[in-house]
Amino acid sequence: MQIPVVRNVLEANEKMAAHVRARLNDRGILALNLISSPGAGKTTLLERTLTDLVSRFNMAVIEGDLQTDNDARRVAATGAQAVQINTEGGCHLDSNLVLSALEKINLEGLDILFIENVGNLVCPVEFDCGEDAKVAILSVAEGDDKPEKYPLLFHLAKAMIINKIDLLPYLDFDVQKACGFARRLNPDLSTFEVSCRTGQNLDLWYAWLEKMLADKKSGSALRT
Amino acid sequence: MQIPVVRNVLEANEKMAAHVRARLNDRGILALNLISSPGAGKTTLLERTLTDLVSRFNMAVIEGDLQTDNDARRVAATGAQAVQINTEGGCHLDSNLVLSALEKINLEGLDILFIENVGNLVCPVEFDCGEDAKVAILSVAEGDDKPEKYPLLFHLAKAMIINKIDLLPYLDFDVQKACGFARRLNPDLSTFEVSCRTGQNLDLWYAWLEKMLADKKSGSALRT
Repeated sequence: MQIPVVRNVLEANEKMAAHVRARLNDRGILALNLISSPGAGKTTLLERTLTDLVSRFNMAVIEGDLQTDNDARRVAATGAQAVQINTEGGCHLDSNLVLSALEKINLEGLDILFIENVGNLVCPVEFDCGEDAKVAILSVAEGDDKPEKYPLLFHLAKAMIINKIDLLPYLDFDVQKACGFARRLNPDLSTFEVSCRTGQNLDLWYAWLEKMLADKKSGSALRT
Repeated sequence: MQIPVVRNVLEANEKMAAHVRARLNDRGILALNLISSPGAGKTTLLERTLTDLVSRFNMAVIEGDLQTDNDARRVAATGAQAVQINTEGGCHLDSNLVLSALEKINLEGLDILFIENVGNLVCPVEFDCGEDAKVAILSVAEGDDKPEKYPLLFHLAKAMIINKIDLLPYLDFDVQKACGFARRLNPDLSTFEVSCRTGQNLDLWYAWLEKMLADKKSGSALRT
């Protein structure tokens, strides 16, 4: 009995995701859905990215959380547009919530929309939010076995950011092992080993963003 | 349309949880449902606990994971009975899965059953697995804001284990802040600040387990 209901929910979500995607494609806006466990560093990654790239791109953020508007406030402090969605216990964002949040964002001249999903390595993966790509963030404190144990995200993501590498000296995390698992699931995965605390290697992530945005703009130009 | 379905699922789960609970109560077995984000250290806590308390208690583990039997193998290496449940993508354990796993465990003479839930700070909280208590595990690498941002678990848990305190010198985690948030949600919460890596303060957790088990056995003796 449960399965057809789940299927209906997912189908309804995909229809709405197509609306989100159409609206963003029309304007050549790159949309990235950031997915990770709680505390892997999504918000800190955004704070850094929004601050460091403020002069190059016009960026906005949709913040998904069960409760509080802490993250939207952190992100808005960088000067970026930020909209908080509280799911009130819901374990993921869906395209309907994202569509409502879009109403509150000025899309004029926007380059990149970041969707920071609820901290959860499982449920958000199945719900298309109309993004161009999912980005997986994995903290080295979580262990190098996570791509093997939570495979769907790493299979579907276009990029994996291994964060908090400043903690590597104090942990048994094997970067090659984590990347190996992830690349077996997804040979085209782009991987970045960064510390959002120290800023190490964030330039590589920024170059990837720039490339993704250029591809999006040229694709968008072809479509129009 | 979705809400009554969810309610039916939860009601069915509660009925089955009552069966699990009755079976464990009959034998005075203490059951604890361990819930945390991915990589907070549930399995390492169990490895330590099973090893350190092997001469005092007869313990078994039900391991919940989306994929792999890595954790059951780690836990079985301590000599404890271990049963792996693979949810094949499912984001939480439920009482029906636990009931099936119980069939594979010798309950005779068992003192403590640990249920290691799927790594997820949201969904497992709503599904009673027939346990006596939920135990929340929070790694200091996740940030001290997690009780505020994921309140339901910390509201319902009987104990909170703050793990990986050996990493505190390298992080901005404020233990008092995390405990303060959690205790506002749940004034009776027992809290432990431990390192499963170094073993620091695990004796306090072991004393709590012993007390919980004694209460269970005396409650069980009253019932019979």
